[in-house]
Amino acid sequence: MASEIRPVFFISDGTGLTAEGLGQALLSQFENITFEKTTLPYVDSVEKAKKAVIEINAAGDQSQTTPIVFDTIVNQEVRDVLANCDGFLVDIFQTFLKPLERELRQSSSYSVGMSHAVAPDGQYSRRIDAVNFALDNDDGARIRYYDQADMILIGVSRSGKTPTSLYLAMQYGLKVANYPLTEDDLDDDALPETLRKYKNKLFGLTIDPERLQAIREMRRPDSRYASLKQCQYEVNEVESLYRRHAIPFLSSTERSVEEISARILQVTGKRKSAR
Amino acid sequence: MASEIRPVFFISDGTGLTAEGLGQALLSQFENITFEKTTLPYVDSVEKAKKAVIEINAAGDQSQTTPIVFDTIVNQEVRDVLANCDGFLVDIFQTFLKPLERELRQSSSYSVGMSHAVAPDGQYSRRIDAVNFALDNDDGARIRYYDQADMILIGVSRSGKTPTSLYLAMQYGLKVANYPLTEDDLDDDALPETLRKYKNKLFGLTIDPERLQAIREMRRPDSRYASLKQCQYEVNEVESLYRRHAIPFLSSTERSVEEISARILQVTGKRKSAR
Repeated sequence: MASEIRPVFFISDGTGLTAEGLGQALLSQFENITFEKTTLPYVDSVEKAKKAVIEINAAGDQSQTTPIVFDTIVNQEVRDVLANCDGFLVDIFQTFLKPLERELRQSSSYSVGMSHAVAPDGQYSRRIDAVNFALDNDDGARIRYYDQADMILIGVSRSGKTPTSLYLAMQYGLKVANYPLTEDDLDDDALPETLRKYKNKLFGLTIDPERLQAIREMRRPDSRYASLKQCQYEVNEVESLYRRHAIPFLSSTERSVEEISARILQVTGKRKSAR
Repeated sequence: MASEIRPVFFISDGTGLTAEGLGQALLSQFENITFEKTTLPYVDSVEKAKKAVIEINAAGDQSQTTPIVFDTIVNQEVRDVLANCDGFLVDIFQTFLKPLERELRQSSSYSVGMSHAVAPDGQYSRRIDAVNFALDNDDGARIRYYDQADMILIGVSRSGKTPTSLYLAMQYGLKVANYPLTEDDLDDDALPETLRKYKNKLFGLTIDPERLQAIREMRRPDSRYASLKQCQYEVNEVESLYRRHAIPFLSSTERSVEEISARILQVTGKRKSAR
């Protein structure tokens, strides 16, 4: 079957993240089609909706197909405008709100933007505090605040600790420090002194040695640090350290930051609350 | 109306982020109900689905209500098990896949986890590279790589530059440096030397002076830095700098990192592609 090109629009009265997230997941189920994706956030007035309709129709004319439109707009008036476009509308909210209203025996609030309201101040601050905590306690830079950490990620250099710490902070508001296990740590059978009393907060990352080599090679080409032999040695040692001390761990190879984070929370049960 | 408590489950064969995102947005439309939320990620086998059913039914028994279940499971066999739970099922994929299959004249791939496959290696690396770029070029630490930056965020200390840079990197794969505008910069009518030749990459953040004071007060209590007078002075100066040089800017006050990021991309048109 020849490859086909379809324009896709994610339209929202907020950031567009929900429409994108659901839309992408659905579209990934269809192969052989190239989707040309456009996100139109903050479409929160009739005027903006009219502009969106013009853009959608133009994309349809140009591609000679029907654009797919995922929308999460709450306001009825704005949605009515959008309903007149030439696209195939996947009206995410409308589809589910009615059955939910029946089940919950309550009308939903249809005010614009309500669904995208800023989280209560406490929760927002919690996430920013957590990001700052991750930055301040990155890469073993400071260890004296480990008592305040929700979790301490450990692993060899370039195994994915920093992005994972930041994602856990940003998405889940968790305070995650990270500590790099170096050759000195690995030569010893015991856990590094610094970590010993926080054993229940430790989570290990590991990585495929070949992948590690490729990553380190970009950072410091032709170094001992980036040699396959060194990578194999460190990964072997770190995995036996995890096993010896019964520290839960997983591999970051071939996994996105989202997936590593979700799996860590599943294993540790440290998800504080859904966003 | 008395406050009611409802258990809610987000169930996925992947991270659960899509089910959470859509579910939270929908539930935020209902007031007066307290939702007790649980996310069950990686439910990718019949056995795990049976465990989930037990958990859902137990929550229903305990709360004496029908739990709401949002699911994005692709595999039919796993979904069949879940369909037998006592919850009110919002089957996100099933609802939309059928109409999309008709519109796209193609069957979707129903293999487990397909919808949550890791992004192609290039895209994944791009995001990690972008996070590293944000960290290396944080807070004016290094300026010699500004030519490689997709964007340079500027603003006074504690106006939200770092979390925003990191979010833009993590979510959109953008290389975002950030540069703090200090009193020295603000006393001058001209743009700081360092920034002058990257004028088209600049985006400004501002913040309500009272909010800035509160944030700085937590960092350095009773300092000149945290005084309301100083905050007002800096914010005034920075906003006139933005206006004088026609630098686009927005206020981070009362906005989540997601919202600030989405609005910056909307204004600058720098969204490389939807995730």
